[in-house]
Amino acid sequence: MRLSSYFLPVLKENPSEAQIVSHRLMLRAGMVRQSAAGIYSWLPLGHRVLKKIEQIVREEQDAAGAQEMLMPTIQPAELWQKSGRYDDYGKEMLRITDRHERPLLYGPTNEEMLTDILRGDLKSYRDLPKILYHIQWKFRDEVRPRFGVMRGREFLMKDAYSFDLDQAGARRSYNRMFVAYLRTFARLGLQAIPMQADTGPIGGDLSHEFIVLAETGESGVFCDRALIERDVLSEQVDYSGDLQPIVDSWTAPYAATEEKHDAARFEALPPERQVAARGIEVGHIFYFGAKYSKPMGAVVPGPNGEQIALEGGSYGIGVSRLVGGIIEASHDDNGIIWPFSVAPFHVGLINLKAGDADCDAACEDLYGKLKAAGLDVLYDDRDERAGAKFATMDLIGLPYQVTVGPRGLKAGVLEVKNRATGEKEELTVEAMLAKLAAARVA
Amino acid sequence: MRLSSYFLPVLKENPSEAQIVSHRLMLRAGMVRQSAAGIYSWLPLGHRVLKKIEQIVREEQDAAGAQEMLMPTIQPAELWQKSGRYDDYGKEMLRITDRHERPLLYGPTNEEMLTDILRGDLKSYRDLPKILYHIQWKFRDEVRPRFGVMRGREFLMKDAYSFDLDQAGARRSYNRMFVAYLRTFARLGLQAIPMQADTGPIGGDLSHEFIVLAETGESGVFCDRALIERDVLSEQVDYSGDLQPIVDSWTAPYAATEEKHDAARFEALPPERQVAARGIEVGHIFYFGAKYSKPMGAVVPGPNGEQIALEGGSYGIGVSRLVGGIIEASHDDNGIIWPFSVAPFHVGLINLKAGDADCDAACEDLYGKLKAAGLDVLYDDRDERAGAKFATMDLIGLPYQVTVGPRGLKAGVLEVKNRATGEKEELTVEAMLAKLAAARVA
Repeated sequence: MRLSSYFLPVLKENPSEAQIVSHRLMLRAGMVRQSAAGIYSWLPLGHRVLKKIEQIVREEQDAAGAQEMLMPTIQPAELWQKSGRYDDYGKEMLRITDRHERPLLYGPTNEEMLTDILRGDLKSYRDLPKILYHIQWKFRDEVRPRFGVMRGREFLMKDAYSFDLDQAGARRSYNRMFVAYLRTFARLGLQAIPMQADTGPIGGDLSHEFIVLAETGESGVFCDRALIERDVLSEQVDYSGDLQPIVDSWTAPYAATEEKHDAARFEALPPERQVAARGIEVGHIFYFGAKYSKPMGAVVPGPNGEQIALEGGSYGIGVSRLVGGIIEASHDDNGIIWPFSVAPFHVGLINLKAGDADCDAACEDLYGKLKAAGLDVLYDDRDERAGAKFATMDLIGLPYQVTVGPRGLKAGVLEVKNRATGEKEELTVEAMLAKLAAARVA
Repeated sequence: MRLSSYFLPVLKENPSEAQIVSHRLMLRAGMVRQSAAGIYSWLPLGHRVLKKIEQIVREEQDAAGAQEMLMPTIQPAELWQKSGRYDDYGKEMLRITDRHERPLLYGPTNEEMLTDILRGDLKSYRDLPKILYHIQWKFRDEVRPRFGVMRGREFLMKDAYSFDLDQAGARRSYNRMFVAYLRTFARLGLQAIPMQADTGPIGGDLSHEFIVLAETGESGVFCDRALIERDVLSEQVDYSGDLQPIVDSWTAPYAATEEKHDAARFEALPPERQVAARGIEVGHIFYFGAKYSKPMGAVVPGPNGEQIALEGGSYGIGVSRLVGGIIEASHDDNGIIWPFSVAPFHVGLINLKAGDADCDAACEDLYGKLKAAGLDVLYDDRDERAGAKFATMDLIGLPYQVTVGPRGLKAGVLEVKNRATGEKEELTVEAMLAKLAAARVA
């Protein structure tokens, strides 16, 4: 993409309405614009990040055996009246009346809707287990939306739902999602720690929040350093096998949010393993048993003709929230520092002297070669001063900056800057391409 | 994907609520389920088709220089009050009041919202031209939703918006979208003919509907056979060049919907070139000038400091509607016939004797090989009788069926059926793989 034609309205000043760094940087980097309180438009740069996160979430859901579908944003109220949650939800639910005076709502979640679909379409115990998911916009009418996309009203969520014949099956589905979540967040460049969460009236130990560590996190968390040092992606996973040992190895070490903190257990850890930090919730998984299938009559005939109420669980990831969450976890004074996997572009190509025939030709050549190497490139071909170009690239946080200027061209080198470390190197074209291609497959 | 674990609830009977063939087949093939009048859930098979169509639309928008973004579904009413369309829209607009009694609406289209964003973020005439698009769910509260996803209330639309400094620029943007639409529909396996449409109060000739020919189409259309016989995808397009000759070559031959039919002009064609058919509208492109930028104050300073109101156009493709439209154009008595490009899976692999060690092993091997060849495979590994397996495959309409049975295995062959032609061949594994790989790149 050529920056001269790209819609990237960066802001020089910090917008006064933004209280937290991710909100500030998303506005300044031209990623989003607010359209109404807690409702955002995703401009091209922000949209690219959103899509990359979505795709990683999708790949890990698919790998874990979940099947993608898509439910609508608008739901009939009667589904929620049947489950008993229509009144419980209160003013956070956006209630709507259509032209025929039928009560609708903008879905905040989809347990009822999917249970209703399966109620009609599952014919036998042989149709189970099933894990279905969708990535769809949700609405929660927060009384005081704030922190940009971190607590918006219209937000993108991946929500999966599992359906099993019994509790043992439900636990297997739960474990699949547990492991898929660990892998998902690791691929997004995040340190995510599963922490036991409230299960509400159902009880049991099958509810975990996934908390990302970030200095600017919304709540305090405490955990064993062992959980932070694990390299999730180097561990092989066989989803058809028994995942319980993996789950146990993650839930045995100490980890808790401040609400559930047990100071005695924490302080029993060797001091070098005590980590007290701040965290952001980015995922929540939950076993709910027959909470929806019973009132809604979602049953299947078992092997002996008996009626079995489906055992369910739900599994959410805040996809749009993650854009802010990643920035909270990865930025500096100059702007965003994107992990390679979700960067809107991998490389910013900076032409220091746009209009100069040699610089232009060298940049065009490089632009083609970088794209041919499978890299997403933002080429700053504008007639602007160098300082402004560097500042923009630092602000939008692409992992690598490749700078082409007249002096380097004469010497046969270009400058490559690593945004995260700040390290700069002068490299030949070939060495630069080899370096970036290696980063791509890492 | 293994059919034994896939959520594919096919129906044996024709659902009584479906009046048209695409609706009937989408329900029977387990692609969608209605969640409320005109509001559908997309089950895994339907979702795959929707995503494939969306991706082709995206690729052709990108190739034409449009930039993807994403606006929210919920809009503040004040934007529409400013443009003057809030009252015009009537009961088709789904109006919503939030917990603070602020008037919102579920967006039926996005001219106002995007004009408002550009109003704040375009700083100079040098920031133009721009074409921005998004692929987002819309809502129109149709008084009588029907025909399944062909006339739903919540529907997926790709809507693009162009912004230029003058009418000549707006025409260039219009031409880009015109050509992109021709290519998009051709890649979807559709014969789409651009036909001049009403422009409303603005006038001019810059409004076209794209009509797909289908026997079951909603309206009568008349056109010159020359338009049908053109092979759009074999024609090279340079979007940076002058597209007017291409547009002219499509608008010169006779083509009109029945509302605009000129019998005299049509009958002046040689009889063999007179095509009277039925059609379905799948796209609409529209130049609207300063209709939104003037009331909303979307102006940029020109080269001499003068204020220039943006010249706009909008360009819609009904993505969810296309799923139905493609089925209307491509089906037979046994079910859907998917064009290869949008088929949910390319190949249905049928194990005639699931449980037989040789058949199971041969199928597992083939399943791996087909996937390795880049093909999407649905493997029917169920213990079902052959007739039911063939009927399901015909119903869901995958382009190729590969059948493995004990007799063929002994002879070293398998049967390959082309769903569209019905043609069956006995081929070796290697010959089958070569044939399907060739279909993939065609």
